[in-house]
Parts: sequence; structure tokens; C-alpha cells
Amino acid sequence: MASRVSVSAPPKEGEVTTGPIYRSHKHYNEVAFSNDFGEATLRVPVRRIDLTDGTHFDAYDTSGIYTEESPALNLKEGLAKVRDSWPSAPAVAASVDAPADAPKVRTQLAWARAGIVTPEMAYIAAREGVDVEVVREEVAAGRAVIPANHKHPEIEPMIIGKRFATKVNANIGNSAVTSSISEEVEKMVWATRWGADTIMDLSTGKDIHETREWILRNSPVPVGTVPIYQALEKVKGDPAKLTWEIYRDTIIEQCEQGVDYMTVHAGVLLRYVPLAANRVTGIVSRGGSIMAAWCLAHHKESFLYTRFAELCDILAQYDVTFSLGDGLRPGSIADANDEAQLAELRTLGELTKIAKSRGCQVMIEGPGHVPMHKIAINVKWEEEWCEEAPFYTLGPLATDIAPGYDHITSAIGAAIIAQAGTAMLCYVTPKEHLGLPNRDDVKVGVITYKISAHAADLAKGLPCAQERDDALSKARFEFRWHDQFALALDPDTALDYHDETLPAEPAKTAHFCSMCGPKFCSMRISKDVQDYAKENGLDSVEAIEAGMAEKSQEFTDAGGRVYLPIASE
Amino acid sequence: MASRVSVSAPPKEGEVTTGPIYRSHKHYNEVAFSNDFGEATLRVPVRRIDLTDGTHFDAYDTSGIYTEESPALNLKEGLAKVRDSWPSAPAVAASVDAPADAPKVRTQLAWARAGIVTPEMAYIAAREGVDVEVVREEVAAGRAVIPANHKHPEIEPMIIGKRFATKVNANIGNSAVTSSISEEVEKMVWATRWGADTIMDLSTGKDIHETREWILRNSPVPVGTVPIYQALEKVKGDPAKLTWEIYRDTIIEQCEQGVDYMTVHAGVLLRYVPLAANRVTGIVSRGGSIMAAWCLAHHKESFLYTRFAELCDILAQYDVTFSLGDGLRPGSIADANDEAQLAELRTLGELTKIAKSRGCQVMIEGPGHVPMHKIAINVKWEEEWCEEAPFYTLGPLATDIAPGYDHITSAIGAAIIAQAGTAMLCYVTPKEHLGLPNRDDVKVGVITYKISAHAADLAKGLPCAQERDDALSKARFEFRWHDQFALALDPDTALDYHDETLPAEPAKTAHFCSMCGPKFCSMRISKDVQDYAKENGLDSVEAIEAGMAEKSQEFTDAGGRVYLPIASE
Repeated sequence: MASRVSVSAPPKEGEVTTGPIYRSHKHYNEVAFSNDFGEATLRVPVRRIDLTDGTHFDAYDTSGIYTEESPALNLKEGLAKVRDSWPSAPAVAASVDAPADAPKVRTQLAWARAGIVTPEMAYIAAREGVDVEVVREEVAAGRAVIPANHKHPEIEPMIIGKRFATKVNANIGNSAVTSSISEEVEKMVWATRWGADTIMDLSTGKDIHETREWILRNSPVPVGTVPIYQALEKVKGDPAKLTWEIYRDTIIEQCEQGVDYMTVHAGVLLRYVPLAANRVTGIVSRGGSIMAAWCLAHHKESFLYTRFAELCDILAQYDVTFSLGDGLRPGSIADANDEAQLAELRTLGELTKIAKSRGCQVMIEGPGHVPMHKIAINVKWEEEWCEEAPFYTLGPLATDIAPGYDHITSAIGAAIIAQAGTAMLCYVTPKEHLGLPNRDDVKVGVITYKISAHAADLAKGLPCAQERDDALSKARFEFRWHDQFALALDPDTALDYHDETLPAEPAKTAHFCSMCGPKFCSMRISKDVQDYAKENGLDSVEAIEAGMAEKSQEFTDAGGRVYLPIASE
Repeated sequence: MASRVSVSAPPKEGEVTTGPIYRSHKHYNEVAFSNDFGEATLRVPVRRIDLTDGTHFDAYDTSGIYTEESPALNLKEGLAKVRDSWPSAPAVAASVDAPADAPKVRTQLAWARAGIVTPEMAYIAAREGVDVEVVREEVAAGRAVIPANHKHPEIEPMIIGKRFATKVNANIGNSAVTSSISEEVEKMVWATRWGADTIMDLSTGKDIHETREWILRNSPVPVGTVPIYQALEKVKGDPAKLTWEIYRDTIIEQCEQGVDYMTVHAGVLLRYVPLAANRVTGIVSRGGSIMAAWCLAHHKESFLYTRFAELCDILAQYDVTFSLGDGLRPGSIADANDEAQLAELRTLGELTKIAKSRGCQVMIEGPGHVPMHKIAINVKWEEEWCEEAPFYTLGPLATDIAPGYDHITSAIGAAIIAQAGTAMLCYVTPKEHLGLPNRDDVKVGVITYKISAHAADLAKGLPCAQERDDALSKARFEFRWHDQFALALDPDTALDYHDETLPAEPAKTAHFCSMCGPKFCSMRISKDVQDYAKENGLDSVEAIEAGMAEKSQEFTDAGGRVYLPIASE
């Protein structure tokens, strides 16, 4: 694999997309860090958007070195292991209520509880624009997680919690049916280019280990997996043949590789399976259906549930974060918020307590298909039953009737559930229910979910969220087209669409919108109205009500035209 | 212009798209109607979706005869003038509180108040699946409107009101910059094919009258306009030169042609203009900016406001519905719910009372750009100040930062505002802010807004809304791929996407999803789990808890596999 500078067209086999985003450049803010265990200079990246007036706007950046002007890439070696040079604290007690058999641990949760500020916390504070104590407190309370396996030193640390910017996960991964390793690596680079905060490798086909290795070594963002998929491959696809030993070995293999968080469907209990028997769409989680099959076949609780404490101690060794899976999530509007779903969520609450007592970071997976009026209550239940562990939800899709557009059906649900407090959204692409997403689908999925996440951040009144909206709208009103494109979530598409109607470069500085032509451009007229009102002291209700008729006369005398056509028709 | 049977590719210049939607056929339910003034047989269309099990699902159908197998089209003559043969009631008092100078009128509002059930009301009741008295009561209360100009007998009547299915409007129309008449007619046919309930012709270029004539004569749905655009053309684009006489003549010209509803920006008062002076994006409504310019230039209230009663009496003659325009709607997140917007809305409330007292049907236009947490209150204000007149909103866009994806930023806002009570949503296409929508953009805009409308109808618990979701999800779980596509809002796209991953016809009956391959198909496993559980009496919690270990043994003996791979890997 080699690097390549390009944006629109897919790269050649074995290459990945590199180079800056439109009118932006990578900038690193240097943060001096020190604690009792050492010091480091943290280089925190931003996408610096260069505006035409000489100023700039700094945007949160997930894209790693790939968007540098000339990144020093070596895909075979992987990214630099930056975190290895940061000071690391020693093992501490897992928690004040840790069971007697729980070993001391080196996790962000345990350190936060012990009052230790880690380099990861400082890095995140700079990235999010908040005080580092906010980061430490939220992690200590278990309301936020920092997925960062000690064996994954390449990542740029990030946080998942409702007090921070809402995050977006992009699923990639090959299957028995389609796609190759290099395609998956490019999907990772491509997804993070457009703003994916984490990626999940959901590969189920051959070469699972190798695919994951390439992704991990080259990913600037945390990587999640669902280890049961690989375990199932090891028993040739027969759920009943799964054992604790096979699963445990798979977990250790993935921990050693550097996976940052793992979906574990430990809440699918035997007695919940009948609850799903009369659903319209049964069990739609792959992991959930596998575990349900196992429970039925053996007629007992799964090893994920019975061996959960052991599992915790393995994950804690690496500081791998639990993503407690919703194996019984609803797969249709009809099944939303039913007893199967809620029973499992209550069990995830119990498991959360166990994991945290052993020092593990935990987030909780949720939704699926849920109608709008049943969405917000999901967050309330999750917070109540799971001690406000960060909620990580798929969509939810707000209707079942639009296959081909499920990025949109779910963007509606995702925005609503994020506003209600979900910390990370798992994207849905246009191919959901129909096929595997290609590179274009991945981009559409990511951008769509960045919209939902940002809309929710605006609604939550997150500091800084509105600054970008204001900057873009100001550029729009001032006909600074290039700035409008540059500040957009997807400048390339905005530019392409503008080109379709008015391709010439002068149109990029034209004082009218391409929809209406110069004469009917409301922005144009409005700006003239505004300028005129200000110049003539008509920008207050008092001035207007004082009845300044002479001003009106002047305006008429001056031509009375509030627009100046600048293009022939 | 001639007809043509095709779906995906755009038709040739001068032709329009015809033919049934995937696995559907046009069906007409015949409704015998009579009242004191005559009788008629109403033929109410549905899209009958033919399912593979021999049953069918009837969907609300907006597409007119164009989706018949072999429509008898003559675009030059236009559609049959069906409503001309229906009994029409005589003029009645405009209202109980009608001013002394108000003439008697022939409007759905006045008739509804007089207890008269019209053929349009009966047609709509059959279409919506509700009792005709519900229709009459909602219209009488002014909570719903039936936009149906007496001079537009070609339309299939529909209703806009919060107790009915949420409606979607698609804007079309040429501008000085782009597009031709035949393109616009095709956009109308294309938009209604995918579910647009009304269309607005926003043409501003040359041939405004002729473009509108073609659209009106061939449209199966009500057509709206913004008459100020044509009036402005008549004064060569100079807002200050607009007069009541020019505007009045334009209104009459359009009423005579058959326009069903008209946007009138009568709420832009002189004293509100300064309220917009310090906004981030000023006045973004074209009509609003034109009227603001007029008010400033003449330093007095506009003729739309001062001559409003006269305007009412003209519209009432034809039963043209007012769509009171939001000339001061916010064009950015920063400007949402500001005093300019609210001041105008209060004035629209006053105008609503005047219009209704003179027998006119009224709806109120709203939003624009509004963050999620400020959306629902808009509906509350509108209902309080405007006597619950149907709210008709553009989006709103829930963030400003995604030009190129504003169908999505606004689908989020649209779903939320529709759930809160908006009766009709004005679509936004991916080209919003960037260019004029082409045929593909129109389709994406319509489908996206059908999603928002339907999601809201589910959330409002509208009778029948969930039936389609359940039918589609059932088809999905039973691997009836063709039925899943047919029940989708856009079968063609769903089918195309499935073909991309698994093109062969056998894949359309395969018992696994194309995402995961056979082994990891949760639906497949889940269905086996479900079947097994039912066959073995394990479909209740009691049975499971009774500890039927022998069942487990049987299951294992039977091969223990809950899936049967049906494709080689």
C-alpha cells in the first residue's frame, strides 16, 4: 500500500486517500503536559479552515495525518506510536467497591477515580475545549469513556460522553460475500476523513485477523469489534459449538492486537429468548441471534454472562472498553421498546456495575428501529438502569418503509436520541438492509451522522457548537461562496452542486444565489435593504415609527432599486 | 408533449414519465356521493401494491393517471376536468361573523360551516380513511384546508390539516438562470409520482404564464404560487414600482388560470424591517425581501396589508386558499425564533381572522432554519396566534453547516415539527442554497420528506400509519425481497442497491441478507430460533424456566445448527 493525493475518485487498489480538505490545512496545537509520572508535549490536531478574509476557523479533526499536505505514510509499518512516549501511571485499585479478587488496574476509569490526570485526558480537554477536570470527573463517574487500549498507541485520544461533542461511529469490515483488505483500510481512512470518531471492524469473512491488523496499525481513531464474529468463524459458523475458552482466546488475541472497545452481548439471557419469539422481526442483532441460539441449544445462560467477571479482568488489563451489546434491539417499529429490549437493558445495568467495580470502562448499546415518540424514553431508562454510562445507539430508524434511504430515516432518530443524551451514534448507510456499503455510502453515512450529531450539540447548547453555523451563515449572507463551501461538512459536494448550475469561477464571487438569478435573490435584496436601513438610521423601530418620510424619498430618488443586477439575463 | 413508459432515465424533451410503480397497479375505489345539490360517483385512487403471497397493500396515491398502465394522455389538452361533473353547492354566508360588506361565497370553509358536505370532502374522507364528518368539522373549524380552485377541475382533492396524514409540497419552477417549460412539467409529474401532495410553481423567468398553464392543466395535485414573483416581472424587477393594481391583476390572472393556493407576504410590516436589520442572514424569503424593499421605499405599509380584505374577496370567489407567507422566516440558526419572525407571525394571526371572516381558507407558512430545541414551540405559537390554521413549514433545517445535504438537515427538523402538529412540509432538495434542483434532486427531496411526514404520522399515532411499516418489516423478516422493495417508498432505488451487492435473481428469494452472507444473517438465525422455540414449546418464559433440558438435547441431536447455509462461501 502506498499514499496518494486525491479526493473524489477512489484510490487505486492498495492506496488510500490523502491530502487536505478543501481550503483547509492540518494544524497542531501543542499542549505541555506533566503529572507525577512524567511529562510530554501533546500535539492536538485541528482542521484549520482558511477563510478569504485572512482569518481562519478551527474545526475538530478526526482524520489523522492523512489530511496533511504530504503525510509521511507507511501503511505496512502503520502510524507512529505516539502514546508510547507519554507518561503512564501505575496500577491502582479498580474501585472503592472492588471485589476482593479484583486485581489492581491501569485504566482511565480507575486513574480518574484516583484523581490522576492522564495525558489522554489532557489531550481530550484541549480537543473539546473544556477544562481537564471536567474530563476527569466525567470519566471517574463513568458518564464518559476514553476507548484507548494500551496496545493501540497510534490513536489520537477521544472521549465519548454526553457532556462532550456527540460522536459518530462508522462500521466497516468485509464479509463472506464481498470486499478486500485494502478496500477496508481505505474505508477507514475515508470515514475518518469525513469525521468518523471511531470505527468498528465488523469483518466476518476470511482474513479477519489480518484485516484488523491493517486497520488498527493505520487508524487515528479508536477501533471497536464484535469478537463473537471471529469466535464463530473458529467453530465454522456453528453457534452451539462456541465455548468460553474459544471466546476468551479470541478476546485476548484482539486485546493484544490493540482493539479499543468490544461489543459483548452478555445481556441475552435464556429467559429473554421467548420474549422475542413473537416479534415482527425477531432478533436482528447478529451477536444477539448467535447468543440466543447458543442459549437455546445448551439450555443455559451464556458464558458471556456466567464468566463476565473474568472477562472484565481481561479487558481491564488492556483498558479495553466494554460496549455492552443490545442483542435484543428492535428491528422494526412494531418491536420498539418491548419487553425483550427492556429486559436486556436491565441486565446490562447489572453488568455495568460489575464491570465498573473491576475498573472497566463501559458504554451501553441501544436502539435500532424506534418511532419518534418512543425515542427519548430510551435514554431515560438507560441512564436510570445503567448509572448514566455513555449510551451508544444505532440510529434509531424512525420508520421501516424507506430501504435505500435508511441513513435518513435513522438520521432523524439519531438527532432526537442524541439531543436526549446519547453520547455516540452508530451510523447507518443508504445500503442498510440491502447490501454492503461502498466508499460513497460510507461518506454519505458519515456526513449524515455528523449532521445529526451537530444538530443535537446545537440543541444541547454545547459551547462552540453554534460558532460554525454562524461562520457559515455569515459567509453565505456575504456571498463568500468559497468560505461557505470550506466551512461545510462536505465542501466537495457543495462545490460540485454549485458548479452544476453556475460552473464559471465568477459565480463563486457573484452576489446572488444560483437558485433564483440576480433579480430574485432575497439575500441580495435583503443585504441592500439592510445596508440602506443602517446608512439611513432606519435600523431601529423608533426611527421607522418616527415616520422618516424624507428618507423614503431619498431612497426613491437614488433609483429606488434595492438590487443591482450584475449579470445579463 | 407525448407520453412515455419508463422510470429511471429522464424522458425525452417534451415527454413525461408514465407507467406503474414497481409491482403496483393503479386501483380506483368507487364512492357513491350525493347531497342536496346532486350526485356523483367519485373514483378515489390508490396505489395497489401486489404482494407475492397473493394479497395486496393499498397506499395513498398522489400520482394521477400517469402511473396507470396505459394512461390516455394529451398534455396539450390536459387532464380530464373531473370535478366539473360533481354537484356544486350555491354561495352561502362567508361566516357568522362576516363583515357587512362581505359577499356570499362558494368556499369549502363556508360550506363546511353551513353543514354542507361537498364531493371534495367525501373524496378526501375515502382517501384518508376517516369519517366524512371529521373532514367537514376540521375544515369548518379552519384547522384544515382543501386547496381546490373552482377553475382547477383536474385535481384529485386532498386535505391539509394536522388530524390527517402529513402532506409534502414540492417546489418546482424555472428561473432566469435555467430550465425549460417541458422540464418543469416533467418535474411536476415526477414529484407527484413519488408522493408530492401539492406542488408550487415558483417560476421567475420568462414564460411564467405559459409554464403555469402547462403545469395546471396536467397536475393531479393542487398547485400553489407566489404571485408577487410574476408581479415583479411585470415591473421589470423593481420592487418599488409594484402597485396594488398590478398585483391585483396578477392575482386575478392566476385565480382564473386555476391556481389552488397562493403565498401572500402580507405580514411584512414596515416596523418589522428594522428587526431584521441586525440578523446574521437578514431576510431570506424572496417575497419577504421584495415587500420589505417596497415598504422602505414608500415608507408605508404594503398594499398586501392595507388591501387585505379586497384580496380576500377575490380569492374567495375562486376558493383559492391563502398561504400566509413568512417573509421574515429565519435563514440561519442564529436568527431562529427572533422578534422579527414572531412579530410577523402575530400579524399573520390577525390576517387569518380577517380572511376566515370573509370565507377564505387559510394556512400559515413557517420555519426555515431552527435548531431542534426551538422547533416545537413554533407550532404552539402558531396554533395560539393563528386559530390553529394548518401550519405549512419549510424544513426547518436543524443546522446551517451542511450545504449539499440540506434535504437531510431539514428532514430532521421537518419530522420534529410535523410531530408537533405541522400539517404540510415544504420539501428541501440537496441543491438548497447551491443551485436549482434537477429531476434527481426533486425525487430525493420528495422521498426524504415522505420519510419525515411518515415518521411524524407514526409518532402522532395516526390510524393506518404503522400498517405499512409492519407489512414491510414482515416481508423483510420472511425474506420476501420483492415485497420489501415494492412496499418501500422508492422501490427502484432499493432494488438497485440490492443488485449492487447480489445482482442475481436467486438473491431476491435468498434467506439471508446481502450484508452479512448466509452464516451471519441474524434474521436467518433468529427465524430458525423462533421456529425452533415455537415447535418445542419454548416460546414462553414459563416453558424456559421449567428447565426443559431435554429440548436442548433434542436440538443438539438434531444437528444443533440454527442456520442452514444455502450458498457456498
